[in-house]
Amino acid sequence: MRFTKGHGTANDFVLLPDPDASLALTDALVAAVCDRRRGVGGDGVLRVVPTALVPEVAAQAREAEWFMDYRNADGGAVEMCGNGVRVFARYLVAHGLASGDALAIATRDGVKHVRLNDDGTVTVDMGTPAFEGPAPEGATFVSMGNPHVVFFVPSVDAAPVATRGPDIEAATPGGTNVEYAAVSPRGLAMRVWERGVGETMSCGTGACAVAVAASLRGLSGRAVDVTVPGGLLGVEWRADDRVYLTGPAVLVADGTLSGAWLDANA
Amino acid sequence: MRFTKGHGTANDFVLLPDPDASLALTDALVAAVCDRRRGVGGDGVLRVVPTALVPEVAAQAREAEWFMDYRNADGGAVEMCGNGVRVFARYLVAHGLASGDALAIATRDGVKHVRLNDDGTVTVDMGTPAFEGPAPEGATFVSMGNPHVVFFVPSVDAAPVATRGPDIEAATPGGTNVEYAAVSPRGLAMRVWERGVGETMSCGTGACAVAVAASLRGLSGRAVDVTVPGGLLGVEWRADDRVYLTGPAVLVADGTLSGAWLDANA
Repeated sequence: MRFTKGHGTANDFVLLPDPDASLALTDALVAAVCDRRRGVGGDGVLRVVPTALVPEVAAQAREAEWFMDYRNADGGAVEMCGNGVRVFARYLVAHGLASGDALAIATRDGVKHVRLNDDGTVTVDMGTPAFEGPAPEGATFVSMGNPHVVFFVPSVDAAPVATRGPDIEAATPGGTNVEYAAVSPRGLAMRVWERGVGETMSCGTGACAVAVAASLRGLSGRAVDVTVPGGLLGVEWRADDRVYLTGPAVLVADGTLSGAWLDANA
Repeated sequence: MRFTKGHGTANDFVLLPDPDASLALTDALVAAVCDRRRGVGGDGVLRVVPTALVPEVAAQAREAEWFMDYRNADGGAVEMCGNGVRVFARYLVAHGLASGDALAIATRDGVKHVRLNDDGTVTVDMGTPAFEGPAPEGATFVSMGNPHVVFFVPSVDAAPVATRGPDIEAATPGGTNVEYAAVSPRGLAMRVWERGVGETMSCGTGACAVAVAASLRGLSGRAVDVTVPGGLLGVEWRADDRVYLTGPAVLVADGTLSGAWLDANA
């Protein structure tokens, strides 16, 4: 079984090509692949599969040839990931599965439009924000398809991400992502508590939510750089109300899983 | 640049073949390769290089064709690793660089003799223990080439590995590894604070030290299974005073580092 390892702002993925939709991707196999010591290691798996061969998304096949089948490290299906879709786009071009600098990629959250920039970054249309939802006092609610509550603080270094984050998630029906953000010399800085995961190095929808909330409060313009622990993202909230996320997409290595390892873990 | 990822009891390594000793293995490149999110990920790198081509160990070349050049994740050279040498042996045979079930491998701690067993485990002659060295009250000092202090406790679950380990290391001239061990239904169980690293999933010399100390105290026989957080090791302190460590050696995947990634990190 072939794989590619890649990351976007240190949010890392194992891409598994599945050109004929024949891969038996069990939860156990995903967990074994994502194990950082006993497997390849990653935050999740991105199965690369023709959209037309996957019933749940086949309706997107006219627009998008490839489906990003994203699984969390525990095997659970995930709708969309702003870091993952950049790495997925880079993979398609690097492996000759797509060409040009504008791609459409099928996801469980619908077709995503992606642009590969000359400087090596990738820009993703993340859709329009929405603002109706629960937030603790002092926080701003922003939905980017998934829910976020954003706190602005003097500095993210001392922000109570790991202490208040889980409490806020638990107290919110359906859970929520929690961001602590600050104005920084570069634009904005943020740390994130991801729903169901914990504190992470980067969250694409979280960066979008923070930039939108900052713009609404007059803390930034509608285009701003957002420093996350894993690197730098750019967010632009354009006049048509759509939010565009720009960031790195790095392919680290290509490889083949050992047959004996697969026999022991599949 | 080709690589193989492997592990022994969840102590994981990136093996880098270097058949003509031409690899410029800087500390920065080792750290980048070992980065679990931005690189391949591992506790360290094992460079696979002909012994005769490395001046510091060339004297071992008559006995051992291949030198295990072990670097910690920060790039620092390491003398020997009981988990790494098993994976190294498995790699040599899997890649056709050695054959048979008995191998000699050059290390900075001298030639190590290894046996590949029919059940897939690998046995390493870890040498003779020594007992002259500093230990806190209640602990047993055992040197397996490197220093260990072993505490026996009723249960390893509640052992103060992360709280007392660093204090004992700091209070010992030159530092020390610290093991907490208990008699278990399977034989012995242990947790380890590794000198310069912290609590880890497994330590081969630590398992040997624990088994020797337990045997001296009449808590086990001279052959005993030792459960570490990352899996199961077997230790046999034979009549000739040499200690043999047996455990799994798993090759997970073979791969090639991306040229662009290497350009950015080498």
